Amino acid sequence: MRIFDREAAPHPARVRIVVAAKGLEDQIEFVSVDLIAAEQKQPGFLAMNPIGKIPVLELPDGTIISESTAITEYLDNLDGNPILTGTTPREKGLIHMMQRRAEMMLIDAVDDYFHYGTPGLGPTLRPWRMPDWSGAKEWGQRRGAYAVANMPYFNDVLAKQPFLAGDQFSMPDVTLFAGLMFAEIVGLPIALELTALHTWRSNVADLPAVKNRSGQTPLPEDLARHGDAE
Amino acid sequence: MRIFDREAAPHPARVRIVVAAKGLEDQIEFVSVDLIAAEQKQPGFLAMNPIGKIPVLELPDGTIISESTAITEYLDNLDGNPILTGTTPREKGLIHMMQRRAEMMLIDAVDDYFHYGTPGLGPTLRPWRMPDWSGAKEWGQRRGAYAVANMPYFNDVLAKQPFLAGDQFSMPDVTLFAGLMFAEIVGLPIALELTALHTWRSNVADLPAVKNRSGQTPLPEDLARHGDAE
Repeated sequence: MRIFDREAAPHPARVRIVVAAKGLEDQIEFVSVDLIAAEQKQPGFLAMNPIGKIPVLELPDGTIISESTAITEYLDNLDGNPILTGTTPREKGLIHMMQRRAEMMLIDAVDDYFHYGTPGLGPTLRPWRMPDWSGAKEWGQRRGAYAVANMPYFNDVLAKQPFLAGDQFSMPDVTLFAGLMFAEIVGLPIALELTALHTWRSNVADLPAVKNRSGQTPLPEDLARHGDAE
Repeated sequence: MRIFDREAAPHPARVRIVVAAKGLEDQIEFVSVDLIAAEQKQPGFLAMNPIGKIPVLELPDGTIISESTAITEYLDNLDGNPILTGTTPREKGLIHMMQRRAEMMLIDAVDDYFHYGTPGLGPTLRPWRMPDWSGAKEWGQRRGAYAVANMPYFNDVLAKQPFLAGDQFSMPDVTLFAGLMFAEIVGLPIALELTALHTWRSNVADLPAVKNRSGQTPLPEDLARHGDAE
């Protein structure tokens, strides 16, 4: 299998944690996508993922699976022993509910903040950032504020249970962890008083799959100022 | 089980098609949410779904599952015989990939168009529609244009295979069907030349689960002008 991504970027981090949790490192070749040069917006890449974002998984038969949730469903079920996407109907329901919340209420909003509310990945991507719209920057900034305003919700959930979908680490924890890492890089840190969220983040950071995942090489300095996300 | 929703609204339509496909009508009590009065933005509802949107599923033990994808995962797996969310890793991956595309590229964008680019559900919901932001309406209109611009992508997929994830009707077909129904109601119809999309839509409309689902009562006239979505 091949995964098209970019080391240390937020959504690739989600999939790389899944790869590590499932012990699949040896079965995957990572192919780096040049985000700064807008490679993900060119026809070849758009044929794989029409939304123009990484990561994308290519199976040995050429089948393309994009979207972190979909790639996680595939990889987690490959050995018939899912550990991140649930086994009972109730687990599957709660995991997918919290996955959507971690996306809509946090990581998607941070994405928009980074790409529209800040200089983002720089000038080459500008044509894909609604340059003809004077309101784009304010919209991006509102999206950042929305992400920050949602952090107490996750704190409240994690004050009552160890992980987002209950007692077990699962897919939405990966998403929230990557989202908060991204938020911090772009200047939207977790408020000090959200203690349950801080505790949860430390616990997740110590998990072997998170600690030992590939692709943690620091970003080049020109990216590290703002993160590196699609 | 109880489902909090609103007859004939787009996301409730997704779940009601799933309920019909799984033959679960007898096990579910539908509880109507007054969207016009912004009931979904009040504390009681937000405790169930912090994003303030319908539908929401409540299990007999009080467990809450929100988000159409999560509710579908729960209901489809309840009898141990999933027909809409896949059984093999490859099916699960492709179904969740197309589900995200049908959401991000279509129904979510139509939602934003309806609520921000048009008067939406009316004045009571105005405080939740960024009334302090002069750019909100233009943003909403751009979201509508984005949905329309993505319709040819789905047409191309459906020119090559009968359903979005391959040979079988599955979760993303439900999402795209509801999204296109919603788009049409709010004045964003499918272009005539997208013939594969029109053919697919006719085929889906004829499926028993789609044809015979509950909640097809026409909306009151004040809503029918613009649809009825959260």
